[in-house]
Amino acid sequence: MKEEMFMKMAVDIAYENVVTNGGGPFGAVVVKNGQIIGVGRNQVTTKKDPTAHAEIKAIRAASKYLNNNELKDCQLYTSCEPCPMCLGAIYWARLKVVYYGCTNKDSAKIGFDDEFIYKQIALPVDQRSIPMVRVVPPNTYQPFHAWVNKTNKKKY
Amino acid sequence: MKEEMFMKMAVDIAYENVVTNGGGPFGAVVVKNGQIIGVGRNQVTTKKDPTAHAEIKAIRAASKYLNNNELKDCQLYTSCEPCPMCLGAIYWARLKVVYYGCTNKDSAKIGFDDEFIYKQIALPVDQRSIPMVRVVPPNTYQPFHAWVNKTNKKKY
Repeated sequence: MKEEMFMKMAVDIAYENVVTNGGGPFGAVVVKNGQIIGVGRNQVTTKKDPTAHAEIKAIRAASKYLNNNELKDCQLYTSCEPCPMCLGAIYWARLKVVYYGCTNKDSAKIGFDDEFIYKQIALPVDQRSIPMVRVVPPNTYQPFHAWVNKTNKKKY
Repeated sequence: MKEEMFMKMAVDIAYENVVTNGGGPFGAVVVKNGQIIGVGRNQVTTKKDPTAHAEIKAIRAASKYLNNNELKDCQLYTSCEPCPMCLGAIYWARLKVVYYGCTNKDSAKIGFDDEFIYKQIALPVDQRSIPMVRVVPPNTYQPFHAWVNKTNKKKY
């Protein structure tokens, strides 16, 4: 069955990533019309990029391939359930379906913070562990006003 | 006061981004020791990258500048309250504090989906609008086992 085949490939990328010192044990592929159009592996520590999760890398690769910031008829296969950052990216990319292998409980057991971040995101702004402070200089709403009044804007 | 100064700069970037057709009305800067070490603007539609939010771009720029995937003593100034994707990135980058200008309610009013995605992320996996399906080929746990047994791994 093709779902197993693509998941096996996402998992193979994750395994290879560990063995080759590429980063954390995570891999992902984006599929459209039965073909892989983007792959990604975790490269947080090797690329010094906190956003370099497998899903983000695969989504960016697929978007580049299609020259489109939306992946509307695409499926994401990821070796582990996405963290909130990646889940946010999945929604912005408007993917059709997400297949995942390991769960967030599995990844928490081997030391990854996804569950903690899920809980933080669900909290009101003033109860989060990272302080979030509103600052409102006089120009704060100028970009939004310019956006609303812009005639040739490209929405997403 | 310095918080107003840095926020004004993040907002200026957002405004310039609209006027120059760079993308959505959002800008961000990362500050360390009183100096800007990374800037970002929304480039989703122009770079064809659904992850190219101002905060993600600023975080990636600052991480590259410091050659470190953690931004522990850094502050993020963003012209608008972060979406869940960017908030996830903020946690992974371990930023010290986040300052924001406009709120998510403000951005919802001008057509951005942040509030919808916040609600989706808080839902159980099987209730989300994008289907999430577990697929477990025989190799599913091989990467995690390899990670646990790896002696020279770089945690994050």
